[in-house]
Amino acid sequence: MQLYIDNKNYSSWSMRPWVLMRHFGIPFEEVMVRFDSFEADSAFKATVNAVGPTGKVPLLVDEGFAVWDTLAIAEYLAEKFPTLPLWPVDQRQRARARSLCAEMHSGFGHLRNHCSQNLEASLPEVGARLIAEQPGVVSDLQRLQAMWTEALDQSGGPFLFGSFGITDAYFAPVVGRIRTYALPVSDIVNEYIANVWETPGVEAFVGEALAEKDFREFEEPYRKSAAG
Amino acid sequence: MQLYIDNKNYSSWSMRPWVLMRHFGIPFEEVMVRFDSFEADSAFKATVNAVGPTGKVPLLVDEGFAVWDTLAIAEYLAEKFPTLPLWPVDQRQRARARSLCAEMHSGFGHLRNHCSQNLEASLPEVGARLIAEQPGVVSDLQRLQAMWTEALDQSGGPFLFGSFGITDAYFAPVVGRIRTYALPVSDIVNEYIANVWETPGVEAFVGEALAEKDFREFEEPYRKSAAG
Ligand SMILES: N[C@@H](CCC(=O)N[C@@H](CS)C(=O)NCC(=O)O)C(=O)O
Ligand SMILES: N[C@@H](CCC(=O)N[C@@H](CS)C(=O)NCC(=O)O)C(=O)O
Repeated sequence: MQLYIDNKNYSSWSMRPWVLMRHFGIPFEEVMVRFDSFEADSAFKATVNAVGPTGKVPLLVDEGFAVWDTLAIAEYLAEKFPTLPLWPVDQRQRARARSLCAEMHSGFGHLRNHCSQNLEASLPEVGARLIAEQPGVVSDLQRLQAMWTEALDQSGGPFLFGSFGITDAYFAPVVGRIRTYALPVSDIVNEYIANVWETPGVEAFVGEALAEKDFREFEEPYRKSAAG
Repeated sequence: MQLYIDNKNYSSWSMRPWVLMRHFGIPFEEVMVRFDSFEADSAFKATVNAVGPTGKVPLLVDEGFAVWDTLAIAEYLAEKFPTLPLWPVDQRQRARARSLCAEMHSGFGHLRNHCSQNLEASLPEVGARLIAEQPGVVSDLQRLQAMWTEALDQSGGPFLFGSFGITDAYFAPVVGRIRTYALPVSDIVNEYIANVWETPGVEAFVGEALAEKDFREFEEPYRKSAAG
């Protein structure tokens, strides 16, 4: 299988399936396509359009068959590797896990817009300003904390549904944002964040992101250079 | 099971699971909660927050167990009724169907923003203006047509994956938007639209939407009254 992704430092969608596959030891060949522009004739689009129809990544190609969009990729892997606990085994837990992922998939727009992924950056002052000035960021963060706290409460942790699975991979980029922008969270949530950060898939992804050193101005609303 | 929904004329998210359940004869009790405001203390929020955590509909409650977010509801029903062909039976077809639904779930923002659901309205002039002035609406429509045409081509129709399923229910509100705003589409797409419109679930939903006659100013960017 080939997994097409964008640059690791900035691409939150790419992070999810990569982390998931790496965590569970699902073998794949990474194809990194550096995003250059939204233009229809960009090099990024040319490469990505040759394998899938959306001109976006992530994109999983299994013996020539393309599966796109993070959630569909996760479901495909869960079906292809039924013995791996990608989803919780219990039906209700699984339904709950899917509710959380689907809510993430179409929601949390304020957090996404204002706190773009930037794994190598440390922007606590930006975070403090956003918390003061952007009620949407505050309410997204509130909902996240409530959701995580409830799941951790029910499962007993250390991950949302006990052991690490799709839902945790889904929220790994959010964990990264909370870290980058030093957003204020409860102790329970902080512990969860630390747990996610130490998993092998996340650790590997973050390590490779930090090694990229590919500063891209159009992905940087807050920094003028990699130094800050 | 109870399905909590908003008003039928305007609520596109509510339409999807309702149409799906009705189409497949899955029994449910409809609980219509008229959306009044985004405020935390609104009557809508009070009712919805009593059964689920997001303050949003649709929300499926199965013997007290809440499943929220359209895609998670669809997956829950597919698991609960494994003999009903909610997803395509073939694994790759199913992966493809999920790619389409997930793409819809987080995408097509221009179409969603500019062509809000309004089943009873007929707004061809608005549609013509949007096509002329909003390149985002045009590119969303292009992608939709490409996606539908490819799926119909492969399956032979009359629905995206042969027989009516989750993916068609997912796109039923989009079919409604194309009709309301008379957006220009190919013959193949037009035929698909007509097919979707005649299915029992969609027909029932639209019929009840038209019977509501509940004109809500804040849902109406283009009309001053129900007359137009
Ligand atoms: N909902 C999609 C989102 C994919 C997405 O937006 N990917 C970005 C990179 S993180 C992309 O490819 N953007 C290029 C573009 O939009 O032209 C998914 O889950 O895969
Ligand atoms: N992604 C969600 C979206 C749900 C949604 O936004 N529902 C609207 C009604 S169509 C709602 O309840 N809005 C109330 C609010 O946002 O406060 C889903 O698929 O269920």
